[in-house]
Amino acid sequence: MHSLWNSAVRPDDIVHGGDLGAFRRTFPAAPEPWLDLSTGINPVPYPLPAIETRAWTRLPSAEGDAALRAAAARAYGAPDAAHVVPAPGTQILIETLPRLVARTRVAVVGPTYAEHAAAWRRAGHAVETVTDIAAVGDAAVVVLVDPNNPDGRTHALRDRLALAGAMEGRGGLLVADEAFCDLEPAESLCAHPGPGLVVLRSFGKTYGLAGLRLGFAVAEPGVAARIAEALGPWSVSGPAQAVGAAALDDAAWREAAARERGAEAARLDRMMIRAGGRVVGGTVLFRTADFPDGPGLWRRLGEAGIAVRRFAERPERLRFGLPPDKEAWCRLSRVLKGG
Amino acid sequence: MHSLWNSAVRPDDIVHGGDLGAFRRTFPAAPEPWLDLSTGINPVPYPLPAIETRAWTRLPSAEGDAALRAAAARAYGAPDAAHVVPAPGTQILIETLPRLVARTRVAVVGPTYAEHAAAWRRAGHAVETVTDIAAVGDAAVVVLVDPNNPDGRTHALRDRLALAGAMEGRGGLLVADEAFCDLEPAESLCAHPGPGLVVLRSFGKTYGLAGLRLGFAVAEPGVAARIAEALGPWSVSGPAQAVGAAALDDAAWREAAARERGAEAARLDRMMIRAGGRVVGGTVLFRTADFPDGPGLWRRLGEAGIAVRRFAERPERLRFGLPPDKEAWCRLSRVLKGG
Repeated sequence: MHSLWNSAVRPDDIVHGGDLGAFRRTFPAAPEPWLDLSTGINPVPYPLPAIETRAWTRLPSAEGDAALRAAAARAYGAPDAAHVVPAPGTQILIETLPRLVARTRVAVVGPTYAEHAAAWRRAGHAVETVTDIAAVGDAAVVVLVDPNNPDGRTHALRDRLALAGAMEGRGGLLVADEAFCDLEPAESLCAHPGPGLVVLRSFGKTYGLAGLRLGFAVAEPGVAARIAEALGPWSVSGPAQAVGAAALDDAAWREAAARERGAEAARLDRMMIRAGGRVVGGTVLFRTADFPDGPGLWRRLGEAGIAVRRFAERPERLRFGLPPDKEAWCRLSRVLKGG
Repeated sequence: MHSLWNSAVRPDDIVHGGDLGAFRRTFPAAPEPWLDLSTGINPVPYPLPAIETRAWTRLPSAEGDAALRAAAARAYGAPDAAHVVPAPGTQILIETLPRLVARTRVAVVGPTYAEHAAAWRRAGHAVETVTDIAAVGDAAVVVLVDPNNPDGRTHALRDRLALAGAMEGRGGLLVADEAFCDLEPAESLCAHPGPGLVVLRSFGKTYGLAGLRLGFAVAEPGVAARIAEALGPWSVSGPAQAVGAAALDDAAWREAAARERGAEAARLDRMMIRAGGRVVGGTVLFRTADFPDGPGLWRRLGEAGIAVRRFAERPERLRFGLPPDKEAWCRLSRVLKGG
């Protein structure tokens, strides 16, 4: 209607985890409260530190922003704070990046988190999904989620570095989404910035604080400045600055979380296998398996008030987040054994 | 260097209120703590309600988003929740809107909040600042801050409606920034949506919770959907959803705040006049005056640890936020009398 606007609104048919409202509508007779295993968010959150009143009342300060960027650089192994752009969640970075790049051809290594391809398409780019990094062709932008969601696929650091180097060599860009990297043994690209690389890191998943809205882009200072400029000042809240800086500097908590969630992920694998599942992979925060009757199991779980992720294009596949406590483990176990 | 990117990074020379770090560097001998009157943020914040743990730990919910949008529609007089887009602060809306519009000619009615013109320029538009709404010519986009910051200039509702109608008639857009409207008697454009109008509303200033990061765009549902799509899901934090919905539904608190801040604004005017100032205007959250020796007064205030806004292009002009308590009023009074 309006030629004023850059592009048309696309109907959003992307299914996300965490939407219990949709589960409640599908399973109105399910017992409350729901057990939400539909996300990959750490079920044991980082203990909230005391938040000063002024974090709420004042504009987020430049000093708070600098401290947060420095803590993120240390945690992620980036050279320094100038390489880090904080944002109110990684999602808004996924939306923003495509609008900063002149229209071009984009290859998304998939299947993966659907918002990447959708965001580049919405901004007018030509997007192709390829199943392997060897197949990215001469796309000017490549999106690689590693470890991948939902199957946990990873690539060796040298392969990812080679891809980043190839993109840089042709004046292109590798968008490396490391949302699930924190608690994995995987080596991050954050230590290897270059003009053709933007790394995305998620805070809320690792620290179990998805409501806080905090995520980061890590890039060469020149590229980081472009992204920061697009978000404008004060995009991250005062509480997120304070909680983020404290949590990112707490390597001991992160190591314990990796160990404990790792043990739980192994337990979940065993339960899925006993239920007839073939484990596809995942990370320590979610596990994905193929089941002989995926749709049936999804329905039985839903009727029992347990939400897990399914995939329209792969009905046999289900993705489970980690149960938060003993009662939840028992509840899940009962349904899986009943299968 | 990179033809990949849409536009160059512009050096940011925009001065904002609230940056006490800069004041401390300029006045290293000033007494601590600083009294920050450099912003237009309500110094008496809305009392924080208890925030449920899950507001921090879970992804912000669709239900919480709907409740927040409904509360904003009621508070702002918009037809319904479909007209409302919540965002993590108004600033990110100011950054985002220009990237959604095909490159065109933009008229900003000014002088006003500098981020508007800067954001449209950064996105590649041709921006002209005009001093009066009669001078917008045939620009496809007009930005009008009303009440204006820093001089408090307002336009009659019929004139703003006529402007919105004219923009709609030519397939253009009026961006009406009503950041300081909440506590004023001014009538909002939110009750009059049309395809050529986007109204911006600020939460943090009115409710004294600038660190929370919350702001809104109010627009026709089709336009609102474009803006919401650009921000993506979950841009607003769980705590901001909860606090925002509670505060926006509290009309009694807002009425008391308008009354009390109004009395304080009148008191501030009297103090500025006694100090030789000529009151230019403002809102109940800030007052702006021209002084015979503006730079001298700014320096005396700074040496006393009191931060107020100055304007590079108008050295005689200073903008004062409201002191938060009796001690702060006395501290300000001493410096103004000493002038």
